[in-house]
Amino acid sequence: MQSLQEKAAEWSGVATEDAFAIDQTNLFQKLGLQTFINLSTNFYTRVYDDEQEWFRSIFANSNKDEAIQNQYEFFVQRMGGPPLFSQRRGHPALIGRHRPFPVTHQAAERWLHHMQQALDTTTDIDDDSKIKMMNFFRHTAYFLVAGDELKNQNQQVPCKHAAGR
Amino acid sequence: MQSLQEKAAEWSGVATEDAFAIDQTNLFQKLGLQTFINLSTNFYTRVYDDEQEWFRSIFANSNKDEAIQNQYEFFVQRMGGPPLFSQRRGHPALIGRHRPFPVTHQAAERWLHHMQQALDTTTDIDDDSKIKMMNFFRHTAYFLVAGDELKNQNQQVPCKHAAGR
Repeated sequence: MQSLQEKAAEWSGVATEDAFAIDQTNLFQKLGLQTFINLSTNFYTRVYDDEQEWFRSIFANSNKDEAIQNQYEFFVQRMGGPPLFSQRRGHPALIGRHRPFPVTHQAAERWLHHMQQALDTTTDIDDDSKIKMMNFFRHTAYFLVAGDELKNQNQQVPCKHAAGR
Repeated sequence: MQSLQEKAAEWSGVATEDAFAIDQTNLFQKLGLQTFINLSTNFYTRVYDDEQEWFRSIFANSNKDEAIQNQYEFFVQRMGGPPLFSQRRGHPALIGRHRPFPVTHQAAERWLHHMQQALDTTTDIDDDSKIKMMNFFRHTAYFLVAGDELKNQNQQVPCKHAAGR
């Protein structure tokens, strides 16, 4: 059976070593806190204004300001900065925390579309950082798609009809 | 509704700030790689030899050497060392990766019992590091108990609703 990681690499087209090239540089020191805040604000402004209702609706029950803070605190922590996310919310537990959401291939691509736009329109992000971050995001998005599929496996237990899906 | 983090703090009796006091010191630099390898080897030797069959059986389908490597690589990465775990296996995704296992309160306590013994019998772990690590482990164990309960929530979804999702 393929591991989460193998699925993430295959589906995203980003090898694990490229995804985690973010660990070769301290992107937090390079870019600074404000750039991460700007990036996440830019990203979620696009998401909450998305013309595609199916995607926008995934976030309908989440508070935009909280979504922004959760995201930039996680990015800062993961990319070499202080552990802001864990101090406030504990382990990132990416798969567990995405459990309420339908993280499909289609949703991953839409998320990545907005993030690419946000990266391209946030000032002070150099090209090398942009490539490293996008590889990390692409791989991670599909890691979560792989994690999302575990939910369906679980539903096979009580629901025989769901088993055929 | 209580967050994962609030449940972890309440059930473990360890406040988030105490759990993540591991981030105030670089425990990897202080203790070194070999100490982490020794700790995880010590821990899993106890687990695989546990006289309590219900607990030992949780690990029956896992390879002991892999379990040891997964654990010390995660500890090293989380406690200030190189990102060994992510380079090999991707995001820790603690809740997602513990999904196959029944992480009950009872199992958390048994895990912590063995870890306390392992900490106490592994050489070169000073008392301050021991306290910091144990707070982190205790909080994390109950964070995973909280994460485990999400599985039950999922299984309560009736089949007809699951099909429509």
